Amino acid sequence: MTMQPSLTLYELAGMDPALRFSPHCWKVRMALAHKGLAAEGLPWRFTDKEAIAFSGQGLVPVLVDGGTAVADSWRIALHLETRFADRPSLFGAPEAVPLARFVNGWSDVVLIPAIARLILTDIARLLGPADEAYFRQTRERRFGAALETVVADRPAHLKALSQTLAPLRALLQGQDFIAGGAPAYADYCVFGMFMWARCASPSDILEGGGDDPVVAWRERLLDAFDGLARRAPALAA
Amino acid sequence: MTMQPSLTLYELAGMDPALRFSPHCWKVRMALAHKGLAAEGLPWRFTDKEAIAFSGQGLVPVLVDGGTAVADSWRIALHLETRFADRPSLFGAPEAVPLARFVNGWSDVVLIPAIARLILTDIARLLGPADEAYFRQTRERRFGAALETVVADRPAHLKALSQTLAPLRALLQGQDFIAGGAPAYADYCVFGMFMWARCASPSDILEGGGDDPVVAWRERLLDAFDGLARRAPALAA
Repeated sequence: MTMQPSLTLYELAGMDPALRFSPHCWKVRMALAHKGLAAEGLPWRFTDKEAIAFSGQGLVPVLVDGGTAVADSWRIALHLETRFADRPSLFGAPEAVPLARFVNGWSDVVLIPAIARLILTDIARLLGPADEAYFRQTRERRFGAALETVVADRPAHLKALSQTLAPLRALLQGQDFIAGGAPAYADYCVFGMFMWARCASPSDILEGGGDDPVVAWRERLLDAFDGLARRAPALAA
Repeated sequence: MTMQPSLTLYELAGMDPALRFSPHCWKVRMALAHKGLAAEGLPWRFTDKEAIAFSGQGLVPVLVDGGTAVADSWRIALHLETRFADRPSLFGAPEAVPLARFVNGWSDVVLIPAIARLILTDIARLLGPADEAYFRQTRERRFGAALETVVADRPAHLKALSQTLAPLRALLQGQDFIAGGAPAYADYCVFGMFMWARCASPSDILEGGGDDPVVAWRERLLDAFDGLARRAPALAA
């Protein structure tokens, strides 16, 4: 295997620098663990645009791998897969990459807004004043309402999320992981969304309990890599 | 390659036996073409339960391959992949199968109800009296209203479908097919839904025109296998 390289990951953090709650950064954290790689995680805040200007854009995750900076979680996954080709594959086979990209897109396009409607105000509470102002302004523009208004009808949003998860629930009735018998990047794409909620919010976004295959799958991923995700600082009970 | 075997496919038909409109049967038709296989397509109606009782259940597609009957489009795809392993793969690699199953489930769970709200009454018009009664009863129970009520607000349903297609649209902005550079079973799962609408309804369910990557992708699949899908009898203009 390739030697352990020098990797740095800029990760979104709350006012508490230990609280790393970005769904996209969690995709990368899990991908690094899958590859058996350790990265130094640097806390970054929404308004720290200068700190990552070297990457040519203003969002995390940003992975610095020696002299190379890679932004965007999907591009980071492809970078890790190519650069560390002799370590366990994130996709299993090249033919699975386009389909994993569909799962990633589904997760970003469909799950993020559904989960956001449950945790936006919890996130705002984690942030320092400058970041909270930035977060409120950008998200209130995106959702067209004050954060408190967006999250107001929690029972309806819990039900909507459960319906949104129907294709995932159907899949997990027949297999342990999205990628099949063992987890891979397609799983981390979706699991990142649940880590976002777990880290940022004291309230569970799944109400189904142990009978819900999605809950059981989430438990399996919380346990993966010696409980990497379960041990991470989080607001969840 | 294996010799051309004797294959029979029971396919849902309208009163006009040439009109084969089932989304699940279209998945299988495209899969057969991908494998370079010809099957005799037998018209079947919703109420012909006796005709397929040998398969142990009452829905099509049913594929009869020599002495073996296989029901359910997903199980038929897996059967074709194993039995005709020396012909072009429907999945590309075993690692892509679990992810193709996610696309198939997304298609069934999310797209079917979204498209049904646009074409239910068109389908009812294709059927003979016994099938129409069966169709109305089962679908009105599923949707909790008369078919005419379900389809009433067409502009809203067109908009909802377009939103539902957002993850597919995002994917197809970066690649020609769901499976990557060439179509495979994941594409046929979704394309079957559009053939359902094309065969059963005179009105297009996509309004985006040529700028919509989903429209462009549908055109590519209509052209696949020498225009197999484009040449099929259909109500579409």
